[in-house]
Amino acid sequence: MTTNSAILTPELIALAHRLADASGAVIRPYFRTENGVVDKADGTPVTKADREGELAIRAILDVERPGDGIWGEEFGANDLDADYVWTLDPVDGTKAFMTGKPMWGTLIGLLHRGVPILGIIDQPWLKERWIGGLGLPTTFNGQRVQVQSVDRLADAVFSTTALDMFTGDKVVPFDRFCRSVKLISWGGDCYHYGLVASGFLDGVIEAELKLHDVVALAPILQQAGGYLTNWDGSLIRMGPDPTIRYKVVASGSAKLHAEALAVLNA
Amino acid sequence: MTTNSAILTPELIALAHRLADASGAVIRPYFRTENGVVDKADGTPVTKADREGELAIRAILDVERPGDGIWGEEFGANDLDADYVWTLDPVDGTKAFMTGKPMWGTLIGLLHRGVPILGIIDQPWLKERWIGGLGLPTTFNGQRVQVQSVDRLADAVFSTTALDMFTGDKVVPFDRFCRSVKLISWGGDCYHYGLVASGFLDGVIEAELKLHDVVALAPILQQAGGYLTNWDGSLIRMGPDPTIRYKVVASGSAKLHAEALAVLNA
Repeated sequence: MTTNSAILTPELIALAHRLADASGAVIRPYFRTENGVVDKADGTPVTKADREGELAIRAILDVERPGDGIWGEEFGANDLDADYVWTLDPVDGTKAFMTGKPMWGTLIGLLHRGVPILGIIDQPWLKERWIGGLGLPTTFNGQRVQVQSVDRLADAVFSTTALDMFTGDKVVPFDRFCRSVKLISWGGDCYHYGLVASGFLDGVIEAELKLHDVVALAPILQQAGGYLTNWDGSLIRMGPDPTIRYKVVASGSAKLHAEALAVLNA
Repeated sequence: MTTNSAILTPELIALAHRLADASGAVIRPYFRTENGVVDKADGTPVTKADREGELAIRAILDVERPGDGIWGEEFGANDLDADYVWTLDPVDGTKAFMTGKPMWGTLIGLLHRGVPILGIIDQPWLKERWIGGLGLPTTFNGQRVQVQSVDRLADAVFSTTALDMFTGDKVVPFDRFCRSVKLISWGGDCYHYGLVASGFLDGVIEAELKLHDVVALAPILQQAGGYLTNWDGSLIRMGPDPTIRYKVVASGSAKLHAEALAVLNA
């Protein structure tokens, strides 16, 4: 399928909802009952939920969007040179999932020629869903949401998931960032970005994210009036190497975002 | 009221549930709608929810247990030399509450002559409640729960709330602890202890907790088959100075707990 412009049709949006419904139905029964930990080659803990959730989504896409590409956390890449590429992370926040903490989510993103045009953060256990995309203002369970944030870093509450994201050359910028904000709140993975879109949290600072972690988040933030960029200020894109790790910062105000970037790059 | 032995009557247990019901009804409407931040003298963020929740509990205790003492986060101490003393923290996890993350909880504890004999962790927004006490096996929403944990620190997933708990002479032991466990999961406040009692999480390591943060937790862990002690291995007690800060470790197995204490005190 080749198209010159990205068009987010009502059919595509409805399909995205159905993908999240399907993965949620598969994943939900595993939470707090059986975490099904298995080890991938790299030793990362993953769950049966993750694998079966991705298979549920792929089964639908194979039938309804056979020409689209897929970049999935569990089952890898297909047709990344297609105009439309779906990015899938059925259980973002594996540690939270494994420990019974409902701060994980299912991430479904859609790229058009490398540009994120649609994103879903779905929390099937809490029955909460954020969706946003091109021409689609961000909603939370169907209700329009909007960022609401302070403008100064010194007044801002930022979240991050875990300290071990910030190793090597990220130690110093992260430490400087922590000393510049009012508060750092810990833990939360993708759920944090929904809270920024909903106006509860001023921002998120993270690193070591993969393509399937970030594509869904960008449209949700942007269509709620917020910002999500790489630490160097560039927008999230799928580049020639889809395996790169992303250092991202999200925030709810232009002034705040500019100050955050300045501190990270000082 | 003077008694020689602690007796946790059905009436006291029913009262504890009613206290949590009353505070939850007051607190719930403030979550994700108005966080009502005000500054205490020390600048700690607190919420209207916290204050009104404690008042709701105190109103009941004033009528039904006028002879008991109260140690509340917001409105201080009364009659700490009474045989029975209630400890109250209506919103434990203020940062989570303020940022829309449902990982906060209401803590209600009961001391008999300084010894914790009853605890509740209530999450009124998720409608989740852990309760445990003397002769009262720990339940989660009415269902009996039991710890389930690995025995070796190297295999264990521990949680902690925030890095800024570990300053001064706690930096080195905490760093050693982090290097001894399999994973540290971040964020969660009191909710983590419930997850250990329910068998989802192996343990929790924290510091800088106040009396009203710890009293409720100890019976919940112990009556689920787990352990909660100070870092020096001693049990949680109200001592002559109720304002001291507690460094606590909770875990789901005797072997794991012994190893955790050994690493903290190496």
